[in-house]
Amino acid sequence: MRSAPAGRYNTTLPELRKDPVTGRWVIIATDRARRPSDFSRESVTPVGTAFCPFCVGHEHKTPPEILAYRDSGGPNEPGWRVRVVPNKFPALGIEGDLSRTGEGMFDKMSGVGAHEVVIETPDHNLSLSQMSERQVEDVFWAFRERILDLKKDGRFRYIMLFKNHGESAGASLEHPHCQLIALPVIPKRVKEELEGSRLYFDFKERCVYCDVIRQESQAGVRVVTETDRYLVLQPYAARFPFETWIIPKRHDSHFETIDAPQLQNLAWVLRSTLRKMDKVLEKPAFNFVIHTAPVQESAMAQYHWHIELMPKLTKVAGFEWGTGFYINPTPPEESAQFLREAGLG
Amino acid sequence: MRSAPAGRYNTTLPELRKDPVTGRWVIIATDRARRPSDFSRESVTPVGTAFCPFCVGHEHKTPPEILAYRDSGGPNEPGWRVRVVPNKFPALGIEGDLSRTGEGMFDKMSGVGAHEVVIETPDHNLSLSQMSERQVEDVFWAFRERILDLKKDGRFRYIMLFKNHGESAGASLEHPHCQLIALPVIPKRVKEELEGSRLYFDFKERCVYCDVIRQESQAGVRVVTETDRYLVLQPYAARFPFETWIIPKRHDSHFETIDAPQLQNLAWVLRSTLRKMDKVLEKPAFNFVIHTAPVQESAMAQYHWHIELMPKLTKVAGFEWGTGFYINPTPPEESAQFLREAGLG
Repeated sequence: MRSAPAGRYNTTLPELRKDPVTGRWVIIATDRARRPSDFSRESVTPVGTAFCPFCVGHEHKTPPEILAYRDSGGPNEPGWRVRVVPNKFPALGIEGDLSRTGEGMFDKMSGVGAHEVVIETPDHNLSLSQMSERQVEDVFWAFRERILDLKKDGRFRYIMLFKNHGESAGASLEHPHCQLIALPVIPKRVKEELEGSRLYFDFKERCVYCDVIRQESQAGVRVVTETDRYLVLQPYAARFPFETWIIPKRHDSHFETIDAPQLQNLAWVLRSTLRKMDKVLEKPAFNFVIHTAPVQESAMAQYHWHIELMPKLTKVAGFEWGTGFYINPTPPEESAQFLREAGLG
Repeated sequence: MRSAPAGRYNTTLPELRKDPVTGRWVIIATDRARRPSDFSRESVTPVGTAFCPFCVGHEHKTPPEILAYRDSGGPNEPGWRVRVVPNKFPALGIEGDLSRTGEGMFDKMSGVGAHEVVIETPDHNLSLSQMSERQVEDVFWAFRERILDLKKDGRFRYIMLFKNHGESAGASLEHPHCQLIALPVIPKRVKEELEGSRLYFDFKERCVYCDVIRQESQAGVRVVTETDRYLVLQPYAARFPFETWIIPKRHDSHFETIDAPQLQNLAWVLRSTLRKMDKVLEKPAFNFVIHTAPVQESAMAQYHWHIELMPKLTKVAGFEWGTGFYINPTPPEESAQFLREAGLG
């Protein structure tokens, strides 16, 4: 959830604009331009629990909930374990038609989409790594349920689920939460993965991720954890120190096809990976993104959903900013070893 | 220049590794793995002029110079205005053959390349925006001269010139400097621009950047400055607030073909743009990258060199980190207006 002036939300639809050279779509929030003085370089002031809109007892500070798992209480009342609400300052608007238009040589589209917040816990100070396995499972169940609901809306072609944890990773509220964005376009990075894995499949008639699992599991040097259902590894061409991928061993292109045993093990695996990072890297800021196939497509033999997790280690993450080229000062073989040796499952 | 333990440089060649899905090449520095404790999240301590290896009088603290423009003195002595030296802790090694090998399903290449530092001024505290036009010209002449020299080496396919200014933009030394990296591969982001502009050219038989210049100069809303030779604009699908492109009006695919009048005006235009940003955004950290065609290719009708300049405004730059998807809270029409109204030429 991003900060914005109180009371201003969902007034005008933002625009999706396409770069005429690279074809990259960008969301331009046209209705709430910031003045340069808004870009102050001070730290975000922790609001504490008294003013936190995600804390239990403050349910009225968010738009009405879309989904909640609760032990007691009614909608928008305390008693919930996980709560999904619309982002109060959404990057996209849920109402409206998809209109594609031009502006001379440029292409744009109305910014129709969904922007939701998954509040992971009522407890302001409980990080994902410190939650019970059951709580982490609840978060993943909420992800799955929201995707299955939103994919019924044919306007949405891609659903992105991600978490920014810590200010340097882009989080603007402390309270543990993830974000969901449903988009009428397929992001460039997703297209690249789809095209790259298609190219490999056409050549080999095998899924590239399945091949990575086989080779990495056997080699072992870049493996962090292996269970019956998941391989946690540092990728061969890691862009960042301690970049970590969680790949399900069973081939599925779409995250939302996950079943109960797969989901339970995923919760265990993610929690254990975060605990290792907390120990080795002293509770780093991090991002994770669920990489999954476009929701309106049927099952794909060449694509394989997975999670990419990147701790934000400020001293080294600056290089590629701007250049688009990555220099990783830490071989993934070494970072994998540090995480393996951290224990914790 | 990146920090690294003193005295350890250029020992083993790093590796270039290719991601098997996206085809992205990454430099993995295999010889100087960092321990997790090296990733402390404290700020870089300003070293001041006493220990700065780029300050005048400290020429012995860098490897011997490759190029210098000087008013007096001999090589590696004071008296220089601009000085180019090898990076003491290079991301790539200048010696060695290009060997492409596999590691099972993965592809790698020896990390042959050049990594140089362009020290812009002997004065530790003089930022690019504060230098004289003549000094900025010297910096660009040094860029051109280094590219023309390095492109004679057939191993190098791409030469990237960029500046990280300010700690949050990735600079690890305060003293004003740019960096040059000569690569044996073409970075993914460059390939995307080449392919995108080729697609446009095949369809329209016109250069996409030339069309952007025509349309934007006429519309005016996203223009920051226009001279006889350059258009400074905020791109239509800007990824970041105040993202700014400097595009030469004359079609040239390669930066290094620049002549004296073009170079002089470029120095004026960049300096004026940086001064506007300093005024409007209170001396922000920033990056710029020269986007130019691969050095071993001859002139291209479809590609057009330009500079992309991005101030790093921390409160808003966090979103895309990890997701690879951009949400820009400031319409480029508004940021262009702020910069236009800043005056300063």
